[in-house]
Amino acid sequence: MSGWLPFDLKRRGFMGAGLLAASAAVIGTKRALGQADQASAHHGHQAATTGSAQYDAGNHMNAHGEMITIGDVDYARNGFDPTPMLTQWETGTVSILPDGRRLRSFEVTAEDKEIEIAPGVMFPAWTFNGRVPGPALRATEGDRVRITFRNFGSHPHSMHFHGFHAARMDGIPGAGLVPPGGEFIYEFDARPYGCHLYHCHALPLARHIHKGMYGLFVIDPDPEKHPEMAAAARSRLFGTPENAQWQEMAMVMNAFDTNFDGENEFYACNTIAHCYAKQPIKVVKSRPVRIYLVNVTEFDPINSFHLHGNFFDYYDQGTTLTPTLRTVDVIMQCQAQRGVLEFTFAEQADHEPGLYMFHAHQSEFTELGWMGMFDVVEALS
Amino acid sequence: MSGWLPFDLKRRGFMGAGLLAASAAVIGTKRALGQADQASAHHGHQAATTGSAQYDAGNHMNAHGEMITIGDVDYARNGFDPTPMLTQWETGTVSILPDGRRLRSFEVTAEDKEIEIAPGVMFPAWTFNGRVPGPALRATEGDRVRITFRNFGSHPHSMHFHGFHAARMDGIPGAGLVPPGGEFIYEFDARPYGCHLYHCHALPLARHIHKGMYGLFVIDPDPEKHPEMAAAARSRLFGTPENAQWQEMAMVMNAFDTNFDGENEFYACNTIAHCYAKQPIKVVKSRPVRIYLVNVTEFDPINSFHLHGNFFDYYDQGTTLTPTLRTVDVIMQCQAQRGVLEFTFAEQADHEPGLYMFHAHQSEFTELGWMGMFDVVEALS
Amino acid sequence: MSGWLPFDLKRRGFMGAGLLAASAAVIGTKRALGQADQASAHHGHQAATTGSAQYDAGNHMNAHGEMITIGDVDYARNGFDPTPMLTQWETGTVSILPDGRRLRSFEVTAEDKEIEIAPGVMFPAWTFNGRVPGPALRATEGDRVRITFRNFGSHPHSMHFHGFHAARMDGIPGAGLVPPGGEFIYEFDARPYGCHLYHCHALPLARHIHKGMYGLFVIDPDPEKHPEMAAAARSRLFGTPENAQWQEMAMVMNAFDTNFDGENEFYACNTIAHCYAKQPIKVVKSRPVRIYLVNVTEFDPINSFHLHGNFFDYYDQGTTLTPTLRTVDVIMQCQAQRGVLEFTFAEQADHEPGLYMFHAHQSEFTELGWMGMFDVVEALS
Repeated sequence: MSGWLPFDLKRRGFMGAGLLAASAAVIGTKRALGQADQASAHHGHQAATTGSAQYDAGNHMNAHGEMITIGDVDYARNGFDPTPMLTQWETGTVSILPDGRRLRSFEVTAEDKEIEIAPGVMFPAWTFNGRVPGPALRATEGDRVRITFRNFGSHPHSMHFHGFHAARMDGIPGAGLVPPGGEFIYEFDARPYGCHLYHCHALPLARHIHKGMYGLFVIDPDPEKHPEMAAAARSRLFGTPENAQWQEMAMVMNAFDTNFDGENEFYACNTIAHCYAKQPIKVVKSRPVRIYLVNVTEFDPINSFHLHGNFFDYYDQGTTLTPTLRTVDVIMQCQAQRGVLEFTFAEQADHEPGLYMFHAHQSEFTELGWMGMFDVVEALS
Repeated sequence: MSGWLPFDLKRRGFMGAGLLAASAAVIGTKRALGQADQASAHHGHQAATTGSAQYDAGNHMNAHGEMITIGDVDYARNGFDPTPMLTQWETGTVSILPDGRRLRSFEVTAEDKEIEIAPGVMFPAWTFNGRVPGPALRATEGDRVRITFRNFGSHPHSMHFHGFHAARMDGIPGAGLVPPGGEFIYEFDARPYGCHLYHCHALPLARHIHKGMYGLFVIDPDPEKHPEMAAAARSRLFGTPENAQWQEMAMVMNAFDTNFDGENEFYACNTIAHCYAKQPIKVVKSRPVRIYLVNVTEFDPINSFHLHGNFFDYYDQGTTLTPTLRTVDVIMQCQAQRGVLEFTFAEQADHEPGLYMFHAHQSEFTELGWMGMFDVVEALS
Repeated sequence: MSGWLPFDLKRRGFMGAGLLAASAAVIGTKRALGQADQASAHHGHQAATTGSAQYDAGNHMNAHGEMITIGDVDYARNGFDPTPMLTQWETGTVSILPDGRRLRSFEVTAEDKEIEIAPGVMFPAWTFNGRVPGPALRATEGDRVRITFRNFGSHPHSMHFHGFHAARMDGIPGAGLVPPGGEFIYEFDARPYGCHLYHCHALPLARHIHKGMYGLFVIDPDPEKHPEMAAAARSRLFGTPENAQWQEMAMVMNAFDTNFDGENEFYACNTIAHCYAKQPIKVVKSRPVRIYLVNVTEFDPINSFHLHGNFFDYYDQGTTLTPTLRTVDVIMQCQAQRGVLEFTFAEQADHEPGLYMFHAHQSEFTELGWMGMFDVVEALS
């Protein structure tokens, strides 16, 4: 019965909560954690051990072990797994137009789908291509992009792209809103280069976004138009060799209101609470990392990204080749803000192999699921 | 009876709500919308049409038609109209001081005034010159500015300017706070150039700001002191011809707590919920647009501005001639943050004539009134 | 009985509230202020005087007199005083390592301690070195830093530093979390230069941070590595002479949830509500000011800093020698964001001696304690 408990409340003296029905307990998660905090603050403490603290690799591996989801999400049933999702870019089908330009075609469908966002916690999502977040679409600056969107869902939906496009391609009511059973073809040039997003813009807006209808839309700069790109890359923190193998990742900061009270009960990077805490992301030391990050969190005014033991350069909205911020370890985003983070775990910064945390620096979000780990290794095994 | 309903709840199955007394319904707006969301999410859908979605100019014109205020605000009774307000700059009276400098004199009064912020929704405002926001004051860098402020309101008020000035000109208790019936002359040099604001700084602060006592205060850079200005203008997105006719607009992001619960029920750009959605702002294609934007929203930690289908350069607080951010489509501001946005609807970006939305990227704010449209045309008719 | 009242509610018609028990009144502060606002808005006004408003130095000195804490905090009992705290930098003990490098050693303890955060309002804090915020640690870029941390508190604690370091030095569970009675030695190179912070990273995170376990961690840039430093300093607002005597200050924006409801009842700069409003900070005109500012506010998404009558340059996270933002008067920070502010009260900007306010531009925070004054003088007496 208690196996479904999203947080290990038992160890915090909340065994009794395990007797509640699943739905009630999920609704009560935020409150219960608050009470646990208070109980901890006033009546008890977590450990009475004395003696020196030593590095504990096993415990470090499970660093938020005392306040993390227990059990596993059934990724097969969901149809998506947050670890491969990090590098699953949807680049479409490429063909050449009569005028010699490159046409990049995508097919996207809207579907209703119940997904598991934390062990035992089901959420009635509305999805693009059956995933939350939707596919990470990727094109190159100047491509002609054609997205055939079919709505197999039970509500009207659309794809509103953040990018240059004509009014009639905007993906809002009257311009590309698609009724159930309908389809629409969005077409525009991929511009400007950057780290963008798309989301459903049907009404009510909060509900359609929050239900899971969003995804990354990355437009790579055309190197021929930007000869400064190579030089820019070499000027970065700790230097970046010209032929460096970048480790690129797609990350979407999102959250879920499981009891429809207009507040989120679960927070995540890529939907599944604590997924990268339980399955740390392998990162090779000395190889540069580039994260495409977008915040789509509904109901909270901001979200943020903090990296432990390291610093990154930040390119706001990815529309610049010169960092907007250099050498920072926390950035903040309101909904639809996004950017590119670049960093390296490096010998020069004492970055021994081990686990390096990343999370929102809003404690509540961290505790409710938006926390992960980079597992820094010398080489991929 | 139901004509005053601020949101078209009837079409969402809330006909019964029309029977409530007006004040109760206004108070319940936020809650009712939330319920509508949930109802839509679980029980019904907005349309059952099948077939391909086509561009629907009529529906696009009324793109948030299903969740927008209905009826009209009586702008004549209010004494201000949000459309002409966009370009109503108060530049004062200019004279020359004995030392040859330019003196720019303004007269501002505080007045209690009931205003209509959405169809049928009255708000007991405290105003500067009878408007909310107050007059958009505009001077040139280096002017001597003299503001004669008279308080015809029922409470002590002040004008606190964001700008360089002496302590005794600060517009706070003990330094320029004016009792009812009193007056004070604020005087200082217009510096630094930028997009600033003024607001009442009487106590309690939250109440005096939220009641409507704020306005833009723009100081134009002196071209003689900044020869780089012309060059800066030419380097912008899509290029800007030297003699370009800028389309300048004054926008204040504000909100209203109509039931005094410390939360806002209505959000807007320039006070009137959805005003620019119902009366889109005409913008000529290929001519650059410059928006002076300030956030004065009380009770919410941040607000934001998102432009559809286009990107802008952003000059934080307007105190720089080099963009703080280039090519972005969302910026965030906490209260009293402000900045200049510059963009162009351009042939190079496929910007056909049509309607381009702008709004806060906080869905709640959008749905409760802070959403508008640019009506991009080839030429002004 | 009413002497302990944190806000002078009596003058606002709330004499009756003085009869409540202390704990109840503290819990009710936020609500009571809201009611006072409403009462003021609807039923009365603060003054009925007519005539011109004059500069009132005495009232200006007590500018928020009507809504400020009354009575005094017992700084001796607390063991720390916010005024000297502004310049109390803990620079540790310096020795030379065999390889010639500089070793900088610090000793820090965790202790439970009840502190007074507003007159008569006690808070059961968890502290570093008996203070909230903890000691402002300061090193120079490239120093080897060794912090011997002993936990004399009743809960497990850690010091998590924002800075480059190895995984095992991270100060999280499994890597430097210290049980009561234990100790741990954190060691790393001081990098990158900047305005950083440290905080406890034990779980639950929100509780450990909010209880007071945080502090500034400043790493000064090594002038030998950064010859551009001198030039940078000279290019600043109003110019800065090469041998200028900087007036440096450590400021931590924090807040306290006194009734454990997950919201803050008191806000401050350096813990004590309104401390710098009642004891303005002396600043010498024409001498540049540098503030190291960090936001550790728990439970609220953002905090901010606004300076009256003046503007500052802002260096986000202090990791740059070129301002991130120039000539601004409001910046926003989410938790763990921080930065360096530089400004001067100058003849060129009409900055006569007098009181210049600074505060969060969230009215609620200002009214509940996060407001102070700079007392600008010609010379220190």
